[in-house]
Amino acid sequence: MDVRPDSRIGRNAMLLALLGNEKLEPVFIKDLRLQGYIYCQGKTGSMETQKVVAAIETAARQNQVIEKDLYRETHALYHAIMEALHGVTRGQVLLGTVLRTVGLSFAVIRGKPYSSEEEGEWVAVALYGTIGAPVKGSEHEAIGLGINHI
Amino acid sequence: MDVRPDSRIGRNAMLLALLGNEKLEPVFIKDLRLQGYIYCQGKTGSMETQKVVAAIETAARQNQVIEKDLYRETHALYHAIMEALHGVTRGQVLLGTVLRTVGLSFAVIRGKPYSSEEEGEWVAVALYGTIGAPVKGSEHEAIGLGINHI
Amino acid sequence: MDVRPDSRIGRNAMLLALLGNEKLEPVFIKDLRLQGYIYCQGKTGSMETQKVVAAIETAARQNQVIEKDLYRETHALYHAIMEALHGVTRGQVLLGTVLRTVGLSFAVIRGKPYSSEEEGEWVAVALYGTIGAPVKGSEHEAIGLGINHI
Amino acid sequence: MDVRPDSRIGRNAMLLALLGNEKLEPVFIKDLRLQGYIYCQGKTGSMETQKVVAAIETAARQNQVIEKDLYRETHALYHAIMEALHGVTRGQVLLGTVLRTVGLSFAVIRGKPYSSEEEGEWVAVALYGTIGAPVKGSEHEAIGLGINHI
Amino acid sequence: MDVRPDSRIGRNAMLLALLGNEKLEPVFIKDLRLQGYIYCQGKTGSMETQKVVAAIETAARQNQVIEKDLYRETHALYHAIMEALHGVTRGQVLLGTVLRTVGLSFAVIRGKPYSSEEEGEWVAVALYGTIGAPVKGSEHEAIGLGINHI
Amino acid sequence: MDVRPDSRIGRNAMLLALLGNEKLEPVFIKDLRLQGYIYCQGKTGSMETQKVVAAIETAARQNQVIEKDLYRETHALYHAIMEALHGVTRGQVLLGTVLRTVGLSFAVIRGKPYSSEEEGEWVAVALYGTIGAPVKGSEHEAIGLGINHI
Repeated sequence: MDVRPDSRIGRNAMLLALLGNEKLEPVFIKDLRLQGYIYCQGKTGSMETQKVVAAIETAARQNQVIEKDLYRETHALYHAIMEALHGVTRGQVLLGTVLRTVGLSFAVIRGKPYSSEEEGEWVAVALYGTIGAPVKGSEHEAIGLGINHI
Repeated sequence: MDVRPDSRIGRNAMLLALLGNEKLEPVFIKDLRLQGYIYCQGKTGSMETQKVVAAIETAARQNQVIEKDLYRETHALYHAIMEALHGVTRGQVLLGTVLRTVGLSFAVIRGKPYSSEEEGEWVAVALYGTIGAPVKGSEHEAIGLGINHI
Repeated sequence: MDVRPDSRIGRNAMLLALLGNEKLEPVFIKDLRLQGYIYCQGKTGSMETQKVVAAIETAARQNQVIEKDLYRETHALYHAIMEALHGVTRGQVLLGTVLRTVGLSFAVIRGKPYSSEEEGEWVAVALYGTIGAPVKGSEHEAIGLGINHI
Repeated sequence: MDVRPDSRIGRNAMLLALLGNEKLEPVFIKDLRLQGYIYCQGKTGSMETQKVVAAIETAARQNQVIEKDLYRETHALYHAIMEALHGVTRGQVLLGTVLRTVGLSFAVIRGKPYSSEEEGEWVAVALYGTIGAPVKGSEHEAIGLGINHI
Repeated sequence: MDVRPDSRIGRNAMLLALLGNEKLEPVFIKDLRLQGYIYCQGKTGSMETQKVVAAIETAARQNQVIEKDLYRETHALYHAIMEALHGVTRGQVLLGTVLRTVGLSFAVIRGKPYSSEEEGEWVAVALYGTIGAPVKGSEHEAIGLGINHI
Repeated sequence: MDVRPDSRIGRNAMLLALLGNEKLEPVFIKDLRLQGYIYCQGKTGSMETQKVVAAIETAARQNQVIEKDLYRETHALYHAIMEALHGVTRGQVLLGTVLRTVGLSFAVIRGKPYSSEEEGEWVAVALYGTIGAPVKGSEHEAIGLGINHI
């Protein structure tokens, strides 16, 4: 399967979260960087929504995907994370409060998805993993994607 | 890239919606069927949420992914579609009402994602496409996944 | 079964909506009036949320359950209706927009549910019926209750 | 009042939650069982939503209303509980987080509400009680019903 | 700038929250009282939504804006607070749960905003301040207004 | 009353929407421009949410508050409008669908609210007016504020 990254920043982010480095060809990662994207990946699991948010924010800052001293970048990332969590939680952005937990792989990508240079940089947050009762096996998959201008 | 379908029904559905038949190797499709999954794919675009729901329901019925004369199957699919739409709309399941439109590829898969036979059949609805203003180019990507027991 | 109305205005409203005049003993209705409650009952069915709201408001006004020329009473009733609709719709207060329809019996009761005279009058709106696809039989039951001070 | 259980699973569940064993005629309970329904009842009160969810799940498992080792049954029940909580909370499925508490009677019923055998089993969760400030008397009634195929 | 309070209770409340006593002319406050309004002001900051709710309720009670022993008044105020919090939180009425905090000025006003005496008393809750990450400076402004009959 | 615009972009926007040109001193407007803000004001009333969104977007484009050919600016404004509508609608971003209508004054301001030059430009959308039944006088005030980086 010849899957290459392209201008679709959300698709790139979701492929990273869904397939991980093990399944994606090295050429995918190489092409991603060649096209000017910067990104990070990670895993997080918790019954506390704020820990999921914090794990993604920390990874994005430590990997210089967003500039940690600029609030406008934190603001852009925060809303992208919240939008991705809507896809995972599907109604109420609540985990332990409603007795459920998540185990998620995430990818945060930053780049220029539009052909016009003036459209500037955007950020995409992709989440893939499981959601369910705090009992092993009592869970199904969940996915979320959030995109924002940065 | 050697991506094969596996027991993760949501991942299979999302790969179908994200990559389509053009990008997925024929072996992916073949394997999917060998593993007992039935599925359908399609595209839908509208400012009216009900048309998106109807397009997915119609495709799933016409391709025998769900049994059209059983309400319990329609019920299972409907909730999976609504959950997937939460990921696409991220807050309010509204399109034209809040002046936005979608263009979506969808996949509906049915099969047995758990190793225990007793867990039975489940359905996954994956959506991938764009959401934005009713003006060409004024849009970004959106993704949603809904999973339900059937 | 000896079910009598009591100070629980929500329970009284729900029994009216759930059992209707056919099932409730005449003594229930008589007791309800003796205890100072005024109420109305009706049926409404639509794919348009606003028609459901309008049908309940109209019935409540025509039966003098609320004073039609007082906005504060309309305001109290409106919020009670909206709260009841949350129970029926369970997430998004949408019907036709997400391709579903309702057929509902409703009861609107007004009275003094608290022992202290100073707590004054309250209104309860109870809804009972079905929600589902716009296809006969493809539906299940739904219930909602909204209560407000008046 | 001659109220008998019938195919309306939600109505049966709500009558159980609303009237309890004290008010319902023994013949109601007997008829319910004769018609093939299995059910449980209980009470729960908390400012923590997850404790309400857990109390209902535990009762349903301990009374064999759902099979505790099958995730598909837990999944069906969980969504029915969440839908019932939408009716109780009317907007945000939050209790202590927004400074309110509930005291609820609940009933969980399982059976076949449709005449066609193929529609199979469904589960209904009915909640009836009070919601309000964590101060005795500062509360009003609340009701919720969730129904799902199982 | 000659800004005077008038029958618009929400505007009066928002001006109090937005400008505070320092910016509002003494004549504004005097006029407010002359027109029969009673009100209180305060500040609250927290990552816990329930502490924000409690701070506003306590201030309103201690300043006799609402009668603390009447549940109907507590009920009216509570819903006005929740509605104001919708404006501040814009989607999910959650603070620390989604890793954010608020610092708010609030005003609670009670009076008769309608020319008809029969429309009686109403309460308005206005909130103005900042919302953001729990890091100084990583925040922007937020506003909310809730109005209810009392 | 000596109210001057300052770095608080949301407060400036809300004062414009709340007080209008009639009440604000000319020096407020002059100062606003001196501080580098650009803005527009307008009025809109409808039962259709999309018309409210369109009216604000059109005003912002025609007054060059946002660059109409850049999607990133449209995207920033759209989310600010939606957030402001959450304050006005308080739960479900619906108007006619739930039988209510709005009459709103709006202000859209663009500028640099943070002392650090790197935080760049932000946009604030303030809404002030009435919401209620489609019957004159059956309405109360509503307020919303949305802020986004641009």
